Amino acid sequence: MSDAKIRLCVEHPLGSGQSVPLTRDQAHYLFGVMRLGEGSRVLLFNGRDGEWLAEVTDAGKRGGELDCLEQTQPLRPPPDLWLLFAPVKKARTDFIVEKAVEMGVARILPVQTDYTNSERIRRDRLQAHAKEAAEQCGATVVPEVADLQKLDQVLDGWPADRQLLFCDETRAGAGDSLAGATQGPWAIVIGPEGGFSDNERERLRKLPQMTQICLGPRILRSDTAAVAALTLWQSTLGDW
Amino acid sequence: MSDAKIRLCVEHPLGSGQSVPLTRDQAHYLFGVMRLGEGSRVLLFNGRDGEWLAEVTDAGKRGGELDCLEQTQPLRPPPDLWLLFAPVKKARTDFIVEKAVEMGVARILPVQTDYTNSERIRRDRLQAHAKEAAEQCGATVVPEVADLQKLDQVLDGWPADRQLLFCDETRAGAGDSLAGATQGPWAIVIGPEGGFSDNERERLRKLPQMTQICLGPRILRSDTAAVAALTLWQSTLGDW
Repeated sequence: MSDAKIRLCVEHPLGSGQSVPLTRDQAHYLFGVMRLGEGSRVLLFNGRDGEWLAEVTDAGKRGGELDCLEQTQPLRPPPDLWLLFAPVKKARTDFIVEKAVEMGVARILPVQTDYTNSERIRRDRLQAHAKEAAEQCGATVVPEVADLQKLDQVLDGWPADRQLLFCDETRAGAGDSLAGATQGPWAIVIGPEGGFSDNERERLRKLPQMTQICLGPRILRSDTAAVAALTLWQSTLGDW
Repeated sequence: MSDAKIRLCVEHPLGSGQSVPLTRDQAHYLFGVMRLGEGSRVLLFNGRDGEWLAEVTDAGKRGGELDCLEQTQPLRPPPDLWLLFAPVKKARTDFIVEKAVEMGVARILPVQTDYTNSERIRRDRLQAHAKEAAEQCGATVVPEVADLQKLDQVLDGWPADRQLLFCDETRAGAGDSLAGATQGPWAIVIGPEGGFSDNERERLRKLPQMTQICLGPRILRSDTAAVAALTLWQSTLGDW
């Protein structure tokens, strides 16, 4: 399509002949860090107008401007899939957000469970992390990272039409699968390192929208379980 | 099965009534770091005799001893699956080794490709990392980490009976799948961050043992691709 390697997520509208101003941070990244200059080409996306090849027309220290040349990808929103996960240590939480974006989800919901270590998250930091992952992996939409909520509260208001995939490590080899599952809005819920409590497990199992699967005979860390569950869902019901 | 949480990989034979001496490092870990003492219970495995519940009978600063009480898991070797991957940055290489063990492989082969950044690896460090991951995830066998070899050389001596799963990001949506694949010895090959070179891609495609699959429309990092490919293989042909 083009030899432009750098992808940048911007706020500004993108379209034929459209000029796009850069923020100070973006200008610093493109011209200071990546050493681009006038005439350099970059790929832009904004979550609404697909991906555009753009050319630098003004490269300053505190700002700059790009001109859109041509659309290189239509808007390709990820499937309507949410990932619910219990935040773990910082590096692994970042990792789960990065992987969720690469694998393709629409919304990332950090949830507090009975055995969750974290009491709070830095939502803005995780959202920035999701944006970087989208720039890296070629996505045209950045998934939204929601605020930390209690799992109980999320389940209280669970949408009637959204199915839920529950990966229960205590049911290894139970032979559940996604084979008969139907498309539509879905969510995947991944437990914390210590697993779900008995109460949580019971509540999840009682949800009529729930499908249970098993992720093999070994105990997976949360981050591994997230990628594995997303793989099974994407290859069966998603956009793979 | 038991409330013992700590799992330790040892060299010594395990069996009914068997005493197991500890190395200095193991004694330091159990008694210094984890604060166990005489009477504490630990799970042991050695890659040959399954998993055993054992009780500390001697807790010293420089050594100690455990007595095997009962077998808690038979030996469960992972499927005969190799993972070939191009080492990337240190943290992501460690991560790929950890994930390979959790997902269940028999052998981990770091390979040098045309676009590989690393010229060497610390095999002993990666092997220690694989051991820790096995202790963590409940595996009874630690996969072997091989020395770094050139991909070309590995393919020169490729076993006639070992099938190879090749995840090619340049063929997004090509509709290949593992659906018709047969069981037996397998390997998965994951490219470096920069992808395979055209020569490598052509050589892999010409291998008669080769099956090609696609991992979705977004570009996955090597570590994500490894977990995703292992998930598809395990859920179709493996022990999940």
